[in-house]
Amino acid sequence: MLKVPAHQVAGHQAGDGKLGPLVDDSGLFYKPLQSGERGSAEVTFYKSFSSNTRIPENIRRFFPVFHGTRVLEASDGSGLCPHLVLQDIVSGHLNPSVMDIKMGANTWPPQSPEDYIAKCLKKDRETTSIQLGFRISGFQIYGSKESEFWKPDKQFFKSLSAQDVRLVLYKYVSSNASPDLDLNPNCAFASVVYGGSTGILAQLQELKAWFEDQTIYHFYSCSVLMVYGQEGSGAEVKLVDFAHVVDGEGVIDHNFLGGLCSLIKFISDILTTPPDEYSTKACLQDSQNNQSFCDNGIHE
Amino acid sequence: MLKVPAHQVAGHQAGDGKLGPLVDDSGLFYKPLQSGERGSAEVTFYKSFSSNTRIPENIRRFFPVFHGTRVLEASDGSGLCPHLVLQDIVSGHLNPSVMDIKMGANTWPPQSPEDYIAKCLKKDRETTSIQLGFRISGFQIYGSKESEFWKPDKQFFKSLSAQDVRLVLYKYVSSNASPDLDLNPNCAFASVVYGGSTGILAQLQELKAWFEDQTIYHFYSCSVLMVYGQEGSGAEVKLVDFAHVVDGEGVIDHNFLGGLCSLIKFISDILTTPPDEYSTKACLQDSQNNQSFCDNGIHE
Repeated sequence: MLKVPAHQVAGHQAGDGKLGPLVDDSGLFYKPLQSGERGSAEVTFYKSFSSNTRIPENIRRFFPVFHGTRVLEASDGSGLCPHLVLQDIVSGHLNPSVMDIKMGANTWPPQSPEDYIAKCLKKDRETTSIQLGFRISGFQIYGSKESEFWKPDKQFFKSLSAQDVRLVLYKYVSSNASPDLDLNPNCAFASVVYGGSTGILAQLQELKAWFEDQTIYHFYSCSVLMVYGQEGSGAEVKLVDFAHVVDGEGVIDHNFLGGLCSLIKFISDILTTPPDEYSTKACLQDSQNNQSFCDNGIHE
Repeated sequence: MLKVPAHQVAGHQAGDGKLGPLVDDSGLFYKPLQSGERGSAEVTFYKSFSSNTRIPENIRRFFPVFHGTRVLEASDGSGLCPHLVLQDIVSGHLNPSVMDIKMGANTWPPQSPEDYIAKCLKKDRETTSIQLGFRISGFQIYGSKESEFWKPDKQFFKSLSAQDVRLVLYKYVSSNASPDLDLNPNCAFASVVYGGSTGILAQLQELKAWFEDQTIYHFYSCSVLMVYGQEGSGAEVKLVDFAHVVDGEGVIDHNFLGGLCSLIKFISDILTTPPDEYSTKACLQDSQNNQSFCDNGIHE
């Protein structure tokens, strides 16, 4: 009855005797508790969040529904292991295109051990986290019946530049998405998936309004998951991965919020810049920047 | 004709044979160019900004007017030295209360040398920068004709906690401001200085709207300066210190923006929480947080 999820794009994956999440046919997602404090921290977060009366109803829908914990046979055959029982976010979508975006310039909670901070900071600097306030940590994009999904391996995500991130966000809403970097994305689904009153941009803006005010949680190393399917029903934004959530102590999560504003700007740009103008504009912007700032000597 | 500024609250200060800025009676502020790349970077920024046609008019007023550079006798007697000639921001105010807030969780530009990053990161973690997205790096608050200004020394700012920052932002708009931590701030000027359609909060929100969109500059280690005087004319917000501004390269300055949103939340809280409820509410919030999150085990 339990099986390896077909559409997981980031994180530890089950299969080949490895430990990872499992799904069933009823729309549930079973995530093995991470070892040490991380597993218990994530359970604590879900329990806190699901019982917290200060969370507005319109914000709850951005989080997977929590159904408690359950002890199951682990996917790596290592025996019984406690799992979080969560809503399977992608199960309602046909041929889902999924993008996992790890939020925040800094992915380490301030009170972490020094070696953990050093490890995270290195990765935040090597990827786009410091530069963009987020990094793409995985995706699959449905191309066509023939090509099926474009789902790069982990190595791909280690070397993405800011310009690559922009291109990937164009391709995510294109019907001709493929690893071919010379093929211009057609953005066939941009207005339906990113745009409109219920699209991804509107959802991110709703989340942003909450983050400008909420001081309950700080979501380090948490991801925004974007999902849409070929069935044509609505695109969804969900937050996932709460092993590094800490108490907000009366202060907003400026680290998550800054990254969210940056992501919103990328997606707004795509909606206002048609794909055929994309390459040209990128060049123009570069030359404008050069003219207005660099030519004055700062990069000389 | 040139003299040491009476109301400088942060940065290198002239006097006692030290190098620092000078002012004259005509409302100009002469800032000696910092050594090495910093000095030229700041000149480059001012030249770029003042000639950049993409800066909206309503945003220009948040920056000191730039009057070029001039070679002057340095305040430390070391001889002739190039100075930036800028608008003297505080000169229009009687008994000015001034607050210098260094913005951003990370004060280091991503391309900085390793030793510089390590030095900045250490300070960002030791102060409130990482936690709040900003740190208070200096202030003077006018108390009364008798007490004159409360202007703590540099040591004071090295050990401020998040709760201290909140208290200082209350005291900044109080007519009974003093170093006595047991004296509750009366917030006599909160609605005039922070509130209203032209107050500090409204100005910060205007800046925020620009930062959500602008991708020209990234303002590392830049300060928001808040100034108001006893003459009762308007409070002002200015950005100062541009030695670490770098090219935005088409991406928003999420690091500055996150800190700005955090500062906005602090000031909004002060406007919605009268000072007599302040202490009580702080305790209540703590206990609510404990109930909703910590009691579930995350801090056990």
